[in-house]
Amino acid sequence: MGSDKAPESEIRGAILAARQYDVRVHLAGPEHIIRPILRQHLRGQHLPVFIVPASEWITMDDKAAQAVRSKRDSSMRVGLKMVREGRAAGFFTAGNTGAAMATAKMVLGMLAGVERPALVAVLPTTQGTPSLLLDVGANVDCDPDNLVQFAVMGHMYAQNVLKIRAPRVGLLSIGEEDSKGNSLTRDTLPLLRALPGINFTGNVEGRDLYNGNNDVAVCDGFVGNVALKTSEGIAKLVTASLRESLKSTVTSQVGALLSRKAFANFKKRLDYSEYGGAPLLGVRGVCIVGHGSSNERAVMNGIRVTAEFAQAEVNASIEAALAAPAANG
Amino acid sequence: MGSDKAPESEIRGAILAARQYDVRVHLAGPEHIIRPILRQHLRGQHLPVFIVPASEWITMDDKAAQAVRSKRDSSMRVGLKMVREGRAAGFFTAGNTGAAMATAKMVLGMLAGVERPALVAVLPTTQGTPSLLLDVGANVDCDPDNLVQFAVMGHMYAQNVLKIRAPRVGLLSIGEEDSKGNSLTRDTLPLLRALPGINFTGNVEGRDLYNGNNDVAVCDGFVGNVALKTSEGIAKLVTASLRESLKSTVTSQVGALLSRKAFANFKKRLDYSEYGGAPLLGVRGVCIVGHGSSNERAVMNGIRVTAEFAQAEVNASIEAALAAPAANG
Repeated sequence: MGSDKAPESEIRGAILAARQYDVRVHLAGPEHIIRPILRQHLRGQHLPVFIVPASEWITMDDKAAQAVRSKRDSSMRVGLKMVREGRAAGFFTAGNTGAAMATAKMVLGMLAGVERPALVAVLPTTQGTPSLLLDVGANVDCDPDNLVQFAVMGHMYAQNVLKIRAPRVGLLSIGEEDSKGNSLTRDTLPLLRALPGINFTGNVEGRDLYNGNNDVAVCDGFVGNVALKTSEGIAKLVTASLRESLKSTVTSQVGALLSRKAFANFKKRLDYSEYGGAPLLGVRGVCIVGHGSSNERAVMNGIRVTAEFAQAEVNASIEAALAAPAANG
Repeated sequence: MGSDKAPESEIRGAILAARQYDVRVHLAGPEHIIRPILRQHLRGQHLPVFIVPASEWITMDDKAAQAVRSKRDSSMRVGLKMVREGRAAGFFTAGNTGAAMATAKMVLGMLAGVERPALVAVLPTTQGTPSLLLDVGANVDCDPDNLVQFAVMGHMYAQNVLKIRAPRVGLLSIGEEDSKGNSLTRDTLPLLRALPGINFTGNVEGRDLYNGNNDVAVCDGFVGNVALKTSEGIAKLVTASLRESLKSTVTSQVGALLSRKAFANFKKRLDYSEYGGAPLLGVRGVCIVGHGSSNERAVMNGIRVTAEFAQAEVNASIEAALAAPAANG
């Protein structure tokens, strides 16, 4: 019920996923709203798409903390309860990110050894491989132990879900030398160097998020969120400028045609809906948060990635790594 | 002597500036290196371009702090001394940014009321107007007073040099609501709200750096530097992806031709060499730091902006604003 075009995107995405992948999809929300749309799009097909009743839902405008407390029967809560009770392998939402994080933390609880959950951005790179940045959620004012836990979680996700054998893990800073950074990164660096089982490569810079030279970058949630929103801002600027340049370069009709094709193609390459959304790591269960503007294709991909995340047993690996004595300093 | 193609870019840029603007340009560096190249490019023209002898220079690979101490007769130091002694109105360098900041601080000293100098990125926006972000230098671990001083400095630069009548000043954070942010931004927000003479609009987000909805954004130097380098990274990614999409869309020859023209056009629109470099605010004098890859055109623009900065008397305005009782809390 959470996306900007809910429940249309969710229902159509669920049908696409059930058709294409070996998954059973449960749609949480009011049955009287979902049933007619589901029936309409199923057109008589028999597919494993079900409805789990939830009488209300959290909107994008709701304040996360308040909505989590007041909406006791929200679709998010109902969906995450299914995960807690083992009736679902994972939960995907394209709704309010803050509410999803808070609800997941409350309903699922935290993994042993993890103090705060981290939201992971899966970014495209010039080399075609994805790169991870965490936390991009709202863990402001982190301490070094938080960043160490983020590094372990990012490493395990990259290795088990993205199938990168020895993910290069970097600390997001403002220069490659160990001396560069703020007090948080300088205090964190030696802890990460001492961490066993992780391919830690030292400080990385903002450009390394997109050039394919790094697989997992860790930072506090303030820095990560600023980096992510800045990226969205300049990507829009570059795209708009190039579109304009292109149109002014050739005759208007040809230019418009070419740019339409090129930009559609380009959008697909960069579109992060293809990556399926942002995993929420550190909670005791599987949860992926998609963009509010998710279309049916993005929802389908989100469900696919949720299934991959659930099958990879990332969480057991994270708990094992953080239970090892060396990881606790 | 500082750019990647020094002294060629500097000498040719100085000639362009002396020809085009009402400026006298002094080139600091070894005379035996500069003289023959200057003579060659002047081709007998009489232009106000002079040489100020300096026996050494700081390279991009030099460690800033060490180079500032050990290279006592560097071209940066000689140039900045001319500013201190009133023999030059301002200093432009396309050299080592860290060394430029440290040398300027040491040679020029600080403005009254300013604790730390701030490096300002002048960013392009979708609306065509520039937007300022400071600090992007290396003021990590700032306190709220530092950010308040950055806000005053950014406001004065935007008003006096960019001629924006009432610059909209925002605090870079992770949400527009006052409650969003980390402990630094939450502590800074009330101070900025109470600051007289500034059009403070509250928290802004990363996307506001590029959408033209904000004129001056302040943040600590760690966050600003990460935002800037992340921007460079994704701009490269978007450009590369679009170029590829465009080439695959039309026949290869036509595609290559079109994309060459469109990208040249586009590059000019976004190229920050057009903005002339990053002002260093807070020191007792005028200093602009250009990109290491500056070509002659970038150097020419840097000299133009340095002259504009010097004529605007920004520094007197900053000292006056910070001397006002309310600005000191």
